Amino acid sequence: MSHTIGLDIGGTKVLGVRLDEHGSIEAEARQGSPHAGLDALIATSLTVVHELGGDGDPIGVGIAGLVDRGGNVLYSPNLPTVRRAALRDELTSATGRTVVVDNDANVALLAEVEYGAAAGRRHALLVTLGTGIGGGMYLDGRMYGGANNFGAEFGHFTVDRSGPMCACGERGHWEAIASGSALGRIAREFVGRSGGAGIVAEAGGDTAAVQGIHVGHAASKGDPDALHILAVYADNVALGLAALANIFDPEMIVIGGGLVELGNLLFGPLRDAFGRHLEGLDYRPAIAVVPAHLGERAGAIGAAVLARGVS
Amino acid sequence: MSHTIGLDIGGTKVLGVRLDEHGSIEAEARQGSPHAGLDALIATSLTVVHELGGDGDPIGVGIAGLVDRGGNVLYSPNLPTVRRAALRDELTSATGRTVVVDNDANVALLAEVEYGAAAGRRHALLVTLGTGIGGGMYLDGRMYGGANNFGAEFGHFTVDRSGPMCACGERGHWEAIASGSALGRIAREFVGRSGGAGIVAEAGGDTAAVQGIHVGHAASKGDPDALHILAVYADNVALGLAALANIFDPEMIVIGGGLVELGNLLFGPLRDAFGRHLEGLDYRPAIAVVPAHLGERAGAIGAAVLARGVS
Repeated sequence: MSHTIGLDIGGTKVLGVRLDEHGSIEAEARQGSPHAGLDALIATSLTVVHELGGDGDPIGVGIAGLVDRGGNVLYSPNLPTVRRAALRDELTSATGRTVVVDNDANVALLAEVEYGAAAGRRHALLVTLGTGIGGGMYLDGRMYGGANNFGAEFGHFTVDRSGPMCACGERGHWEAIASGSALGRIAREFVGRSGGAGIVAEAGGDTAAVQGIHVGHAASKGDPDALHILAVYADNVALGLAALANIFDPEMIVIGGGLVELGNLLFGPLRDAFGRHLEGLDYRPAIAVVPAHLGERAGAIGAAVLARGVS
Repeated sequence: MSHTIGLDIGGTKVLGVRLDEHGSIEAEARQGSPHAGLDALIATSLTVVHELGGDGDPIGVGIAGLVDRGGNVLYSPNLPTVRRAALRDELTSATGRTVVVDNDANVALLAEVEYGAAAGRRHALLVTLGTGIGGGMYLDGRMYGGANNFGAEFGHFTVDRSGPMCACGERGHWEAIASGSALGRIAREFVGRSGGAGIVAEAGGDTAAVQGIHVGHAASKGDPDALHILAVYADNVALGLAALANIFDPEMIVIGGGLVELGNLLFGPLRDAFGRHLEGLDYRPAIAVVPAHLGERAGAIGAAVLARGVS
């Protein structure tokens, strides 16, 4: 009877799971995300919930953006039609069930703590490298969201004051040099300047079409340009990881998002660079930098874990 | 009977207070800090404790540097002869009393939460602007130190990758552009380049002797060069404060350290610049940036508060 529903609402899809009390997925469903405001999002969420079954199970939701403690989505970069929206209350009305809503990275970290890379840890951070950079904080055995649940905006601190502009309008934020999108930009700048034939070939010969994934493909074949770009990118990522390590003193930093698929092509140079940038390396226990375990289902699983607390 | 002793051990002096259960200071004592290793530091601490009286009262200690949960001082930048030192155990043996030891900024924040600027808050950060930058985290009603109590090293994250070197050897750390020492360096660079007669006059006509305090004196007389330098410096400070705000979503950031004496000459431009750098200003409640209330006694008072928990 302690089954729960978890929904991960992203810019592309709504992914839902029905989780049992041991963390096994009993059902899974997905729908494309609508981009026509809150009512459309509620309708799509209802479809996913009904497909999952489990009549009456409480529902947890993870969604990108600023989510306050009342389950209101103030702003979601990937769902711009959903703004200052009472998602929790509307979904409660529509389903007649208990609903909790939190930021997608927060629930993904909760999943990694409960069943993934951070199991058994008391102090862990999550950093997701995707279109942007997301984050979550698990501090002394508890999720932490800040005074208004708006914390862990890890993408938005300045690491390179004279660096490129961030999507938010501020110059030199970590996200502007260390997100998955930034890897693509760095690669396109490189091939525009220096050739990089091995990378361009992966993008079908079109320099303008080069993305981070093409760097990964070329690097996996030993292409020296691609390996160079990954080293530059890994240093960008490590700068911010070292900042977070000096600020939080975590046991572990879990890396999520699409770039995790690069595996040791990314984690090798990343761990090297992290060691170089970390303060007081001789005095402190090692801080593990590890890939997330739960992949694309982390958000939905974590949302279902979140719903347990209220059932 | 719930009186406690607090010692603040700095590079210059050991300041002690005896605190009653309401936070009133019943006795105060100070000695110059010895720089001849742990035994000398224990001897000086004993002198201060005996001057304070209160036989048997538990003792809290705040000391700059990395302090682990066992009360060992791994490294103290201002007391380099005290290294990998079992301060808690040695002071326990020497006094026969209960002793607790923590980082000096942590205990200063505890004092501000209990009796100062952050009274009644559940989410507050402390940032001290002095020789370096120190920090403390009070999150959801609890002090937070990280996995090993080495957290809140707020001075040591990169904000300007191509900026000046930090004392720690890494380039462009916040401390390198926003500490009190950095204000002095910025001012000396300015007067070396552009004159700044009003500031140099405050330093007795010696450009090489210009410190942050001289900028403050000149600014208080309306000197335009000094006001310009404070605006540049305030922007440097605000870059890091905005980073911490985006990461933690605090209710309040308390600013401590010697530069607080500049008052609105600093806090005016600082609050302006903080608003410019903060993410999502339109969506979030205001984050207060306020001066510490307890001045040079904050560390000793907070150390005495810390000792209550173990009495």
